[in-house]
Amino acid sequence: MEIFSYLHLSFIFFIALFIFPHPWNHVNKQGFTVHAEFGSVLETKVSKPNIDLLTASPLHPLDPLTVTEINAVRAILSSYAPFSWTFPAIHSLSLDEPEKAQVLEWKIGDPLPRRKAQVIVLLSGQTHVLVVDLGLGLVTSHVSNPGSGYPLLTAEDISVALQVAQSNEEFQRSIMACGVEFSDLSCGTPSAGWFGPNEEGRRVVKVQCFSTQGTPNFYMRPIEGLTLTVDIDNREVVKITDTGRGIPVPNSLNTDYRYAAQEKAPEMEPINPISMEQPNGPSYRIEQGHIVKWANWEFHLKPDQRAGLIISRAMVRDSETGEPRSVMYKGFASELFVPYMDPDESWYFKSYMDEGEFGLGVTAISLVPLNDCPRYSYYIDGLFVSSDGSPYVRPNIICVFERYAGDISWRHSELNNFQITESRPKVTLVARMAASVGNYDYIFDWEFQTDGLIRVKVGLSGMLMVKGTPRENMYQVPRKNDMSGPLVSENVIGVVHDHFVTFHLDMDIDGTDNSFVEVNLVKEETYPGQSPRKSYLKAKRRAAKSEDEARIKLNIYDPSEFHLVNPSKMSRLGNPSGYKVIPGGNAASLLDLNDPPQIRGAFTNNQIWVTQYNSTEQWAGGLLVYQSKGEDTLDVWSKRNRDIENKDIVLWYTLGFHHIPCQEDFPVMPTVTSSFELKPVNFFESNPILRAKPNFETDLPVCWPAHA
Amino acid sequence: MEIFSYLHLSFIFFIALFIFPHPWNHVNKQGFTVHAEFGSVLETKVSKPNIDLLTASPLHPLDPLTVTEINAVRAILSSYAPFSWTFPAIHSLSLDEPEKAQVLEWKIGDPLPRRKAQVIVLLSGQTHVLVVDLGLGLVTSHVSNPGSGYPLLTAEDISVALQVAQSNEEFQRSIMACGVEFSDLSCGTPSAGWFGPNEEGRRVVKVQCFSTQGTPNFYMRPIEGLTLTVDIDNREVVKITDTGRGIPVPNSLNTDYRYAAQEKAPEMEPINPISMEQPNGPSYRIEQGHIVKWANWEFHLKPDQRAGLIISRAMVRDSETGEPRSVMYKGFASELFVPYMDPDESWYFKSYMDEGEFGLGVTAISLVPLNDCPRYSYYIDGLFVSSDGSPYVRPNIICVFERYAGDISWRHSELNNFQITESRPKVTLVARMAASVGNYDYIFDWEFQTDGLIRVKVGLSGMLMVKGTPRENMYQVPRKNDMSGPLVSENVIGVVHDHFVTFHLDMDIDGTDNSFVEVNLVKEETYPGQSPRKSYLKAKRRAAKSEDEARIKLNIYDPSEFHLVNPSKMSRLGNPSGYKVIPGGNAASLLDLNDPPQIRGAFTNNQIWVTQYNSTEQWAGGLLVYQSKGEDTLDVWSKRNRDIENKDIVLWYTLGFHHIPCQEDFPVMPTVTSSFELKPVNFFESNPILRAKPNFETDLPVCWPAHA
Repeated sequence: MEIFSYLHLSFIFFIALFIFPHPWNHVNKQGFTVHAEFGSVLETKVSKPNIDLLTASPLHPLDPLTVTEINAVRAILSSYAPFSWTFPAIHSLSLDEPEKAQVLEWKIGDPLPRRKAQVIVLLSGQTHVLVVDLGLGLVTSHVSNPGSGYPLLTAEDISVALQVAQSNEEFQRSIMACGVEFSDLSCGTPSAGWFGPNEEGRRVVKVQCFSTQGTPNFYMRPIEGLTLTVDIDNREVVKITDTGRGIPVPNSLNTDYRYAAQEKAPEMEPINPISMEQPNGPSYRIEQGHIVKWANWEFHLKPDQRAGLIISRAMVRDSETGEPRSVMYKGFASELFVPYMDPDESWYFKSYMDEGEFGLGVTAISLVPLNDCPRYSYYIDGLFVSSDGSPYVRPNIICVFERYAGDISWRHSELNNFQITESRPKVTLVARMAASVGNYDYIFDWEFQTDGLIRVKVGLSGMLMVKGTPRENMYQVPRKNDMSGPLVSENVIGVVHDHFVTFHLDMDIDGTDNSFVEVNLVKEETYPGQSPRKSYLKAKRRAAKSEDEARIKLNIYDPSEFHLVNPSKMSRLGNPSGYKVIPGGNAASLLDLNDPPQIRGAFTNNQIWVTQYNSTEQWAGGLLVYQSKGEDTLDVWSKRNRDIENKDIVLWYTLGFHHIPCQEDFPVMPTVTSSFELKPVNFFESNPILRAKPNFETDLPVCWPAHA
Repeated sequence: MEIFSYLHLSFIFFIALFIFPHPWNHVNKQGFTVHAEFGSVLETKVSKPNIDLLTASPLHPLDPLTVTEINAVRAILSSYAPFSWTFPAIHSLSLDEPEKAQVLEWKIGDPLPRRKAQVIVLLSGQTHVLVVDLGLGLVTSHVSNPGSGYPLLTAEDISVALQVAQSNEEFQRSIMACGVEFSDLSCGTPSAGWFGPNEEGRRVVKVQCFSTQGTPNFYMRPIEGLTLTVDIDNREVVKITDTGRGIPVPNSLNTDYRYAAQEKAPEMEPINPISMEQPNGPSYRIEQGHIVKWANWEFHLKPDQRAGLIISRAMVRDSETGEPRSVMYKGFASELFVPYMDPDESWYFKSYMDEGEFGLGVTAISLVPLNDCPRYSYYIDGLFVSSDGSPYVRPNIICVFERYAGDISWRHSELNNFQITESRPKVTLVARMAASVGNYDYIFDWEFQTDGLIRVKVGLSGMLMVKGTPRENMYQVPRKNDMSGPLVSENVIGVVHDHFVTFHLDMDIDGTDNSFVEVNLVKEETYPGQSPRKSYLKAKRRAAKSEDEARIKLNIYDPSEFHLVNPSKMSRLGNPSGYKVIPGGNAASLLDLNDPPQIRGAFTNNQIWVTQYNSTEQWAGGLLVYQSKGEDTLDVWSKRNRDIENKDIVLWYTLGFHHIPCQEDFPVMPTVTSSFELKPVNFFESNPILRAKPNFETDLPVCWPAHA
């Protein structure tokens, strides 16, 4: 939710910045930063790409920029005239993907389309969006201040904010007044949102602090009410408020969640070792570092600084011809919106857009083998760029694994003369990443089934963002049936909040030109004498002609199926080839449409949207989200009301969670998961896994206990 | 959905009844029928209770009736005066559970509360509901015709219906006219519903037929439009309609789903063996045949003729004291409602209530080891009663297994000075059963997590109920955007339908007296000058006082959490101990409230209901569902509007699915799954799995390929 960084005031100049290259990383001779791995669990051997990131070349048009390419971009920018006096701060540097047509035409063996980088920089408080053409060695596009917002915050921004804060005398007095030692101080930089003219037109960030005394779980020890608003570019404290008088820092008891710190076993019978075992090895192959092939699926998978994980060119084999068929050109989490429900001075601004403000790839930390991902997982590193333009590696931020959970992919039994007991086990492929955006952990799973279904799951774990209170128990709470935050521990309120994850799903069913068909289930009344039944349902299909016909608010009493179909690709029966999006549990934003956070988060005004494809419309909250006024959101694009029938279109789906915290969420939250599915509908001529093989005893592994 | 049975007209007197004891079963010397197992996959060795069902005694007050007890009931009924002339047909015979207070008081070592059976019989078209006291050896309660409905259909009912049908000359002429050989004929007995005075007051059933020529998947070969209404008790055809002229029987091409019948491999790379392995054995224990103990959970598990699987006395250990604490007294699927959406003469009546009409336990067929359930599963047999009152065994209809799917139970990482990468694998326990109710397969999973969460999942697979049509493709369909059934194969329509599964969840959180608290999230507007925010959410808690305050229709724009709390059991902070029900994907019935099927299925009028506990209110559609007029449903009980605050209360949750078929559902459907969760909320003082152990490489098994 929030990016916290360490501010050890006792070491004035030592700022440990956990989301960016760290002091304990080493820099090798190529000027290339590699994060050190640490911790015993991480010492498990993991499967990795057989690629030397230092020398690798791009092999696919969508492959991320390589070290060589990143260094070339930096060199080109260094000699670019507008930056000749001062090298700007690099806030984002990633592949500027080739046009879709070029990617679709490209085949293995073809030369790659010309490689380009999109670079977003800040110089003297001004934002510049550049395209660097690596073939030409030139900046080919340069737009200054294209919107009200600013790019992702960098390590340096956070460092500046903390330095400015710590040297503020009023801040120092407040810290002393609340009795926290400077050496126990940990400060974070929640983003500032945008709330009208008072703080707009300059990059401000909030600074709030915690005590690390007695626990690494400082999130549970807020120094409530002390908030500094810092202007990053002018290096000044704009405002300091302290509304926390009388609120103690909650104590550290039972907050440490590290295994090594636990003194006794949990109150339960121990669980014997259990593991998904594949002694013949996994069935997936990962070719050229990014192409995943498994069963009837093939897709391109890459880490991304902002999106975390991007799936591209997902294709499934036709169940009759074996030919690969296009399902999805590109799918990724496009933006997160996390509004907290507290209007107080030190809380109102907490309406995070974690992707556009911090980046999911940048905040992803190495996955923990055997715990975050099972055995036989394959790990992929992220290659990102520091604010000085130098590349660095974040190891093992994506894992790919095969999953067998004892589920059934189809079955039928007949206890008749046919004596049928047919059942097929379900094995799937998962691509996973987990971002630790400050306190919260977001786990993203893309799960592929052999029947053509794609399940997108979001899991939430990590720490609550809590609020200090003088109250130790509910008996001291005056209006306990009417709260924005229940008590989750003594002096600790878990503030009610929402999470919305908006996915960009550029479905290309058998080609780019698709239609969005709403199949509405409508009650029909029978006419007198027609039937003993009074009513029944009909499925009424309607293709949306323009974007305004494709803004969907889910309603259990006005249900529809939502199909993406290719109207030019008919099954042998004349049904259009399609996929449908199947919502699971979901939640909608209830904020006032004119509330500043909701204006910026207007992409959550509907659960489903369909827009005409436009390569610049990738980020649902806008390219420049930080402090933006919401003029570049999905809501704004959709209002252009473009034609979407039989066009290249993009489906947007928002997965929402309301979170009313409870004591079980303290001091670390059991994972809460929700998901949605993309499922073939008349895409295949018939059940594509009819001929799947059952499990036979003789095929399964032979296992011994580790200590046998 | 429907119970199909075989009617081989070439063997006039050979009626194979697949849901009841079969000709190929053998009867042992104790007069006790044991079904033969068949099929190579079933030959896998499975873990079973170490109990001789023939001689077993009941060990727990909730244990199902034993063979000895069933035989005793039969003997008591044989000498019961009202049945001295004719022994009635036994439609249901199962444990009449002791009063809750008796069960709660009982401890291991205590004598069992007096054992009683509830028996529902039919004699001369009259229904009798009896209680037989096994201690007294007497019938202690006898109620005749307590409602408009009739009990579950028996094998004999179906046999009679088919015999009556096959000897009907008009039926024989119709079959000959449509060109189906009598030897290829398979007929089913869809239930008749209730549609007003024309067919009420007598037990009628519908008979419809299929061709088995060339396929065991006769469901895909309907003889469309030929429908016989048979009065079972009077053994006469009440009505015969044939609206199928000009509709061919769809051909058998590509309908056979048996593995042995497949001629080629699926169009995909083969998947290497993958298995959940536990070389030290599973961690669960099953004591006395029915008590499941695992990690911090303990519950009683039993098969049931009607409910399929019943979980009772579910208790989880307190995470601080280790004491077992009550969560749920009893949980089970109470009724299914499956209305089809076609008002035609041969379809209007298809509005199945599979539990009350046929029984989920009776229609459960042996699970297929390694495919329906993973290795290390433990299997439990069902002991049911034939219509002559004799017991028979249905082997392996429930399995229990531990599940590790590569999921994360909680995690957090910090790339700061603390260098934290903590993650815990999720291992759960699953109790599963699968009912093959004619064409459809329902998979029920009760999944228990160590964090206290219970997930209830329903999976749908098996065959569509299809309708014949002269149309071979969509180009021949006149109103293709306005249909109650899309074409799923040549001449085959998949009729739109719904599935609703209503669960009885007698939650007893730390005791019997609980309250239902709706925690409604409501938008609050800030007052001028209060905050830069215009709006935020508050959580408004309201305990429902009476049943009418606890009828909930889900609405994404008026969201609530739904808590069951014990207002007398407070956490140390003063939060009441509770569980919440968390809906996942769901669907509501849209039928007219006055449509006869919806009157009977009125328990689906809301997604959530809470009623005062009443031991007679177990079956949401009524005790006697068959052809009932809906006077004994959850809707009727709830309208009594009893007090439910701080009372013994029952939560009812309905899981719904709309199913618009597509070609992928032909000839067998890939499993569709939906679920809901019961989750602790301030039940534990803090995260109960904080101290859980991570996976270490050295604990995991060492495996070799089977053929290595």
